[in-house]
Amino acid sequence: MSHPPFTAVVETLPETVPFVGPEAIERRTGIRTRARIGANESGFGPSPRVIAALREAAPEVWTYPDPENYELRRALAAHLGIGSEEVTISEGIDGLMGLLVRLFIAPGDIVVTSLGAYPTFNYHVVGFGGDLRFVPYAGVHEDPEALAAKAREVDARMVYLANPDNPMGSFWPAADIARFIDAVPESCLIVLDEAYMETAPEVPLPLDTNRPNLLRLRTFSKAYGMAGLRCGYAIGHRRLIGAFNRIRNHFGVNKQAQVAALAALADQDYLRWAVDAIAGARTRIASIAADNGLRALPSATNFVAVDCGRDGPFAVAVLEALAEQGVFVRKPSAPGLDQHIRISAGPDQALDILAEAMPLAIERAQRAG
Amino acid sequence: MSHPPFTAVVETLPETVPFVGPEAIERRTGIRTRARIGANESGFGPSPRVIAALREAAPEVWTYPDPENYELRRALAAHLGIGSEEVTISEGIDGLMGLLVRLFIAPGDIVVTSLGAYPTFNYHVVGFGGDLRFVPYAGVHEDPEALAAKAREVDARMVYLANPDNPMGSFWPAADIARFIDAVPESCLIVLDEAYMETAPEVPLPLDTNRPNLLRLRTFSKAYGMAGLRCGYAIGHRRLIGAFNRIRNHFGVNKQAQVAALAALADQDYLRWAVDAIAGARTRIASIAADNGLRALPSATNFVAVDCGRDGPFAVAVLEALAEQGVFVRKPSAPGLDQHIRISAGPDQALDILAEAMPLAIERAQRAG
Repeated sequence: MSHPPFTAVVETLPETVPFVGPEAIERRTGIRTRARIGANESGFGPSPRVIAALREAAPEVWTYPDPENYELRRALAAHLGIGSEEVTISEGIDGLMGLLVRLFIAPGDIVVTSLGAYPTFNYHVVGFGGDLRFVPYAGVHEDPEALAAKAREVDARMVYLANPDNPMGSFWPAADIARFIDAVPESCLIVLDEAYMETAPEVPLPLDTNRPNLLRLRTFSKAYGMAGLRCGYAIGHRRLIGAFNRIRNHFGVNKQAQVAALAALADQDYLRWAVDAIAGARTRIASIAADNGLRALPSATNFVAVDCGRDGPFAVAVLEALAEQGVFVRKPSAPGLDQHIRISAGPDQALDILAEAMPLAIERAQRAG
Repeated sequence: MSHPPFTAVVETLPETVPFVGPEAIERRTGIRTRARIGANESGFGPSPRVIAALREAAPEVWTYPDPENYELRRALAAHLGIGSEEVTISEGIDGLMGLLVRLFIAPGDIVVTSLGAYPTFNYHVVGFGGDLRFVPYAGVHEDPEALAAKAREVDARMVYLANPDNPMGSFWPAADIARFIDAVPESCLIVLDEAYMETAPEVPLPLDTNRPNLLRLRTFSKAYGMAGLRCGYAIGHRRLIGAFNRIRNHFGVNKQAQVAALAALADQDYLRWAVDAIAGARTRIASIAADNGLRALPSATNFVAVDCGRDGPFAVAVLEALAEQGVFVRKPSAPGLDQHIRISAGPDQALDILAEAMPLAIERAQRAG
């Protein structure tokens, strides 16, 4: 019996799930998640106006969403001070990454990223046959200078940088990012992932949509508290943004997401409140870490990387001992980063559970070591 | 100033919107849509239980959706009597089409479809550099025998057939489809689009997930009344279904879609009611057509193709004169089909407006001719 053959690229790819969800962990272990602080979601939730808008729009889900995302693009453009042809919407930043890799990367094309940076970007690069080249972190920062140098050296078609950074929570000021952008050749697309920009300590780099090779990715999943709705957007030169209309699933962003994103954008007071709440939670996570003899890294995001003070296996043991107590966190696994665990900012209820579970987690990890 | 170059395939693609939404028509013309009966949505809406589930789940949108769609796949598998590894979920059938073309079609690979069949399938084939070959409709039916013969003749990698058919609403009984499947070589993937299967006059072909080259596509967008939520599913051999996990956007299906689809599936009484309501609306559309001297084609779908009795330009004129009166319908444009307009089944309120608008539309079209 013969089978339809996959393409040559697809033939090489494994079946995978980039992130195992807490639901899958619950199904496997039978342990109920009591504190969901591992996926950098916002436990503070979306604006009450978002919830109201979702409820009001529920009977209208029988119509297709507007394939042009016209209202949302217009609202975002007004909010950002750019043209609506300079922003496109997709099913989260993950959806945008799949599309932008497809636009620019053919089998064998070189893509530069940091060793330990966002794995779903890598998943899409590999998925289109791209050739990934890795630059190590400089301490707990991605290293813009080294990324630009590597991009030039290997004649990369694309280079990825997250600012603020995931998984370490670090941040480069605008001047450093501007220098990085200038150092990358114009023929190489810069993917600047700004998923966490709302929680950054200073206004990021001004928007420059004249730059022919810069795409900035943003999302309603983090500070806006709408991860479940899958709504991300890309900002850039209209040649770049227009190109998404060559290949995207025009009806991919669902109507509830469109409605919710409009409501979220219109409630900037709530966003400011949420950003403050996230900052408070970061402080509390740092103090829980300190109470347990661990060091929390400064964070520009909605999570905190906590140095468990030893090596990777020890941090894995801490994570597992937290999981046994129903505390869902994740951790980086790249060398140099892997002694950390990554804890999402959440409301007091979740952090109370973390505070309660942490001493036993450390104790168990120490016993295991 | 240089630009990052697109891939060779993307370089050839136009920026496009496969379907201009009624919202865009409203924006362009300033005419408010009074009867939205052009996109084969279900104006009867989703089950009240779906609306209740969406409202109840609204505060939970801060968490990512389960990337495995576990609960929904399990519920679908139980409903269909298959294994949960034999079904995958995506952002509507459109999303599935993008993925399945990417799995199997490399630049230059041949894909067979009918001239005038679903254009978004063609969009994705061209988007991955596939070489489309067209088989004409046999009257108002896609022609399974000719499609299989063409697939063999040109050594196609993929062949597409919708049953029931869009845009004509026609239907082939299971025996004809089974003969078609047997006539296609096992190395050629059969994409059987069953978006409209719930409204078909008889149970379609039994599910055979042992067939190595058959993918069946279904959706919650049509009879279930959830087009805005973007939730489609593919059924097939586990090798085919598993392959989607090599490339899909795992977090692409949003949480509201997951919740709603579960609620919809659990309310089969509502589905039966909706299917009856759709059948009633089809009858009414046929009688509105007859009142205006036009012939409605038999329909196995949630829409009716109405023969305007002359040629393509005349049918376009009818469509435009309906649009001027706020009645949104669409029409096929392929030769042999283009004398028809396609009217979606909707509630009485929408069809009252159609009945009122139709005489003037015909009159205007006749004057224009």
